Amino acid sequence: MARFFVSPDDIQNGEILLTGENAQHGKVLRLQPGELIDVCDGMGYDYRCAVQEIDNKTIRVSILEKMESQNEAAVRASVYISFPKADKLEHIIQKATELGAYEIVAFPSARCVSRPDEKSLNKKAERWQKIAHSAAEQSGRGRVPQILILPSYAKALERATKADKAILFYEAERSVTLKMALENSTFSSISLMTGPEGGLEAREVEQAREAGLEICTLGRRILRCETAPLCALSAVMFASGEF
Amino acid sequence: MARFFVSPDDIQNGEILLTGENAQHGKVLRLQPGELIDVCDGMGYDYRCAVQEIDNKTIRVSILEKMESQNEAAVRASVYISFPKADKLEHIIQKATELGAYEIVAFPSARCVSRPDEKSLNKKAERWQKIAHSAAEQSGRGRVPQILILPSYAKALERATKADKAILFYEAERSVTLKMALENSTFSSISLMTGPEGGLEAREVEQAREAGLEICTLGRRILRCETAPLCALSAVMFASGEF
Repeated sequence: MARFFVSPDDIQNGEILLTGENAQHGKVLRLQPGELIDVCDGMGYDYRCAVQEIDNKTIRVSILEKMESQNEAAVRASVYISFPKADKLEHIIQKATELGAYEIVAFPSARCVSRPDEKSLNKKAERWQKIAHSAAEQSGRGRVPQILILPSYAKALERATKADKAILFYEAERSVTLKMALENSTFSSISLMTGPEGGLEAREVEQAREAGLEICTLGRRILRCETAPLCALSAVMFASGEF
Repeated sequence: MARFFVSPDDIQNGEILLTGENAQHGKVLRLQPGELIDVCDGMGYDYRCAVQEIDNKTIRVSILEKMESQNEAAVRASVYISFPKADKLEHIIQKATELGAYEIVAFPSARCVSRPDEKSLNKKAERWQKIAHSAAEQSGRGRVPQILILPSYAKALERATKADKAILFYEAERSVTLKMALENSTFSSISLMTGPEGGLEAREVEQAREAGLEICTLGRRILRCETAPLCALSAVMFASGEF
């Protein structure tokens, strides 16, 4: 069955209006009145709908049933990444969305080689959100992860520690593994933080420890800044019973 | 300490000759006679060496100690991927090497959209091996994973099942998780197989099951063909105690 992603604003009075690309896509599929489709609000709900009316630019459908999406992860994993170069950030957003991240949070740290300026940030944020949207759609998710930009490392630490568990991965950590950090604990939300290309400074790692994050290793091999968050997220999804 | 990757052939009679890029790199580092360096043979051994002689194009070093590399994973994980498009294959080779794959095996399957022809294969294989070499070096591995090309899906199945465990990930599998497949079993080698962009055909999955592979899910979200093998590899590394 065809599945469409809409904005929650498009859902009103038991009806949903497909517009723009969605309407075009519906026409390519040659949807007919009466036909059933699924519509996802990107916020965790799916709607089984029947096509009502097709006109030039829109398709109006009526909601038959509202269902909680079955494709969201049980654990809310927030991916905290210190700004890498733009193409890597986009890569992380796409892959972390596929892998089931609840949200993706980017923040600056001392050794960031790339930090978008205020001016270009709005435009970029829009682009990043679109990448998440498209990856959520393709991977069959029920929710589009939000892409958040924080102004400082301190703010990132503060926010990350609000989850049930908060972990910073650091290549110089040797003894504490992610497995140790997850063992014998239950959590429904977790923050997974990683550094930029040049790594985090030792004082930043101490700052994180003081803020309440656990410092863990991702193994003896040095992972690139775009590999580490996806490796950690895959492991957490596995550990929390997703696959 | 500087670390160099050489071919095992360059190691003879207690001495190693650094040539080409290695020699250039040594000169950039301004190595001096007597200085200590580490040399890795890419086969799992590191050599602590002292610089002997520096001439125009080569650096001769003598071996002080041969040590087993500490950075290799305890479990030998072989990544079996059905040919994706070229850029994705290169991405998988780079990332799987970082993540600790023992070897990477590419093979054709029914729905492959991209399959290198015989003619270009040698050139490509050389390029792929170089990518693995460079990723191994950067991530501090002691071994360069071999990139193998198999001529058929049947050959891939046959080879994959020679490991202690062999798993095929299939998006239509719902009940058997990787966790179930790994539980209560010890293994020192594992094959992780995934399909191409268009997925594997149902009959190919049956063929794999008959050959002895376990069929598992990677969760309810559909992963792209370049995401699935890296997600599986990350989870296996986590499950086998690497981090």
